[in-house]
Amino acid sequence: MASLSILRQNHFFSAALPTRPKPKYAAAPGRIRMSLQENAPTLAVVGVTGAVGQEFLSVLSERDFPYSSIKMLASKRSAGRRLTFEDKEYVVEELTEDSFNGVDIALFSAGGSISKKFGPIAVDRGTIVVDNSSAFRMDENVPLVIPEVNPEAMAGIRVGLGKGALIANPNCSTIICLVAATPLHRRAKVVRMVVSTYQAASGAGAAAMEELELQTREVLAGKPPTCKIFNRQYAFNLFSHNAPILSNGYNEEEMKLVKETRKIWSDKDVKITATCIRVPVMRAHAESVNLQFETPLDEDTAREILKNAPGVVVIDDRESNNFPTPLEVSNKDDVAVGRIRRDLSQDGNQGLDIFICGDQVRKGAALNAIQIAEMLL
Amino acid sequence: MASLSILRQNHFFSAALPTRPKPKYAAAPGRIRMSLQENAPTLAVVGVTGAVGQEFLSVLSERDFPYSSIKMLASKRSAGRRLTFEDKEYVVEELTEDSFNGVDIALFSAGGSISKKFGPIAVDRGTIVVDNSSAFRMDENVPLVIPEVNPEAMAGIRVGLGKGALIANPNCSTIICLVAATPLHRRAKVVRMVVSTYQAASGAGAAAMEELELQTREVLAGKPPTCKIFNRQYAFNLFSHNAPILSNGYNEEEMKLVKETRKIWSDKDVKITATCIRVPVMRAHAESVNLQFETPLDEDTAREILKNAPGVVVIDDRESNNFPTPLEVSNKDDVAVGRIRRDLSQDGNQGLDIFICGDQVRKGAALNAIQIAEMLL
Repeated sequence: MASLSILRQNHFFSAALPTRPKPKYAAAPGRIRMSLQENAPTLAVVGVTGAVGQEFLSVLSERDFPYSSIKMLASKRSAGRRLTFEDKEYVVEELTEDSFNGVDIALFSAGGSISKKFGPIAVDRGTIVVDNSSAFRMDENVPLVIPEVNPEAMAGIRVGLGKGALIANPNCSTIICLVAATPLHRRAKVVRMVVSTYQAASGAGAAAMEELELQTREVLAGKPPTCKIFNRQYAFNLFSHNAPILSNGYNEEEMKLVKETRKIWSDKDVKITATCIRVPVMRAHAESVNLQFETPLDEDTAREILKNAPGVVVIDDRESNNFPTPLEVSNKDDVAVGRIRRDLSQDGNQGLDIFICGDQVRKGAALNAIQIAEMLL
Repeated sequence: MASLSILRQNHFFSAALPTRPKPKYAAAPGRIRMSLQENAPTLAVVGVTGAVGQEFLSVLSERDFPYSSIKMLASKRSAGRRLTFEDKEYVVEELTEDSFNGVDIALFSAGGSISKKFGPIAVDRGTIVVDNSSAFRMDENVPLVIPEVNPEAMAGIRVGLGKGALIANPNCSTIICLVAATPLHRRAKVVRMVVSTYQAASGAGAAAMEELELQTREVLAGKPPTCKIFNRQYAFNLFSHNAPILSNGYNEEEMKLVKETRKIWSDKDVKITATCIRVPVMRAHAESVNLQFETPLDEDTAREILKNAPGVVVIDDRESNNFPTPLEVSNKDDVAVGRIRRDLSQDGNQGLDIFICGDQVRKGAALNAIQIAEMLL
């Protein structure tokens, strides 16, 4: 993935995000890394060679997540590859039914069919699976968790009780939307939400990011673009999300936002519509969200609530026209919110418009899963 | 503008738009161009060296717009430049108070302050001004016209009556939205509209398109991007529209959509909110539009209405996941509409979601102005 170096370039960031308190497990600066510890849980990363799998490793390390051993698991195709993690060399192992013997926590991000097959096997072996796929999200026996939003959903699940369990990580668009919308929902109850997304290449995996980069180079050179992942030009273009369209005309990505929100908020009645669009951005999603409340909520109060919300940073500088951008939140933990304003199309303070950006690979996937894992300790 | 060749590349288009009836003034294939005619109106193009100015010339020529002479006007800086139009060489003249003597129709696209100063001067000389700036759009004595939507607003204004007049071209986002939304509005009356835009570089002019191209090359080469037009990285990024933010928290671009729609629809009560975002796309805008109707309108009826609407092409193939994209409508006249579906967040058939793409430079600016000019003949 050497050609993906662009994705981590930092020198062109237009602004640094305000600093936030260190996470619970973050290593203090200068301190010797403590994450590899005896008596700490045993980990496995399933799909370790993918974009989210790689991010799992970065986040585990950054947050100094304690572990006594870690298994690097992937498909047969990737087995045998070597990778270095926290100064130790590992060989990627092929995922098999026996992979989970003695594993306390497994982080899955290898697609829905792998999760469907190997998730229950791991649980049978006593492993707690945090699954980034959509396989179990709507299963009523599986908690669907954003730690800032509904930690109570996974009450009673802990490492050390000798019992396996499945916990689902919501879809990236849902996580990013709800980290910002939930604090407002708690205050004024959201009754309807109209969402339009601006989704990055990363949501379709590392190969999609590479294709966007390759296509852009080709188009700039006057050549026809290579279309392997997407069947159309993505460079300097955008398109309706490539998820299959359902009989109601919504695509699966949109319905995830609708259904997952209802489950996470335990609110079957909240009305949501979404239009999901892919834009030629590398790794962070943006969402334009129109909210309608049961109780009035003015924009100043909303801004204060968001400033104090966990996992949220407010960037809402009208004077200098500075608001969240995907580039700015790339490789960052926090979801950024701005353009907070009273919705002119609703009476009084019944509605707000907000604009949200969040790193799809990080908070939209790997970070959220590892925050869930932290709650298991 | 040689480096802008990328903007007109056609070889990478993923799909051709369905063909539409030829416009009234279009030259028949193989026919000798008839646009330069004695007794036809005299024209002037103000801002001829800009992106929209250049598009004025392309569209005039393509549609075989009849004229007996044409003046190429621009600022002092561009005066003296030579350009070829319909096989004849012209020298760009400096715009002065005397530029409009003997001019029947002047197409303006040189910014609001130029229009404010020279628009009334031209009208005094008996010229009919079609103005692409925002200078006069909300002036109650100036018609604000989309020919497919409200041609009646310019009733009585014609070349040959010896009277000057001002006609305003709406903002690009408004035109693209209303070409698609108006046929539905006529049937079921839109009472509320929530719009999120995906706006191309071209809306900020040719220099912005060049900057997007330059920045993209720089970022791909690992260099910091040049930020002259926008004060941030635009390549592989998106950001809230750069128009100034007003005291209500909306930016001017968003309020244009709100106010211009009310004027064009002659409906002071229609409720509109908009969030305008710039995306790294070259020359066509996209808009995600959520509609709420007074009278129920089911999605099949809506699709039929749109299929028969002037200036609209429906691309709504759920099975093959084929919907409008900005690239596909680039350099095209029609506004493309897809993702037409019943809004799940509203009762019954009270609402629809649609996704619209339209060429910002063409229908969003030059074409609409020239369609207005055609109605003057």
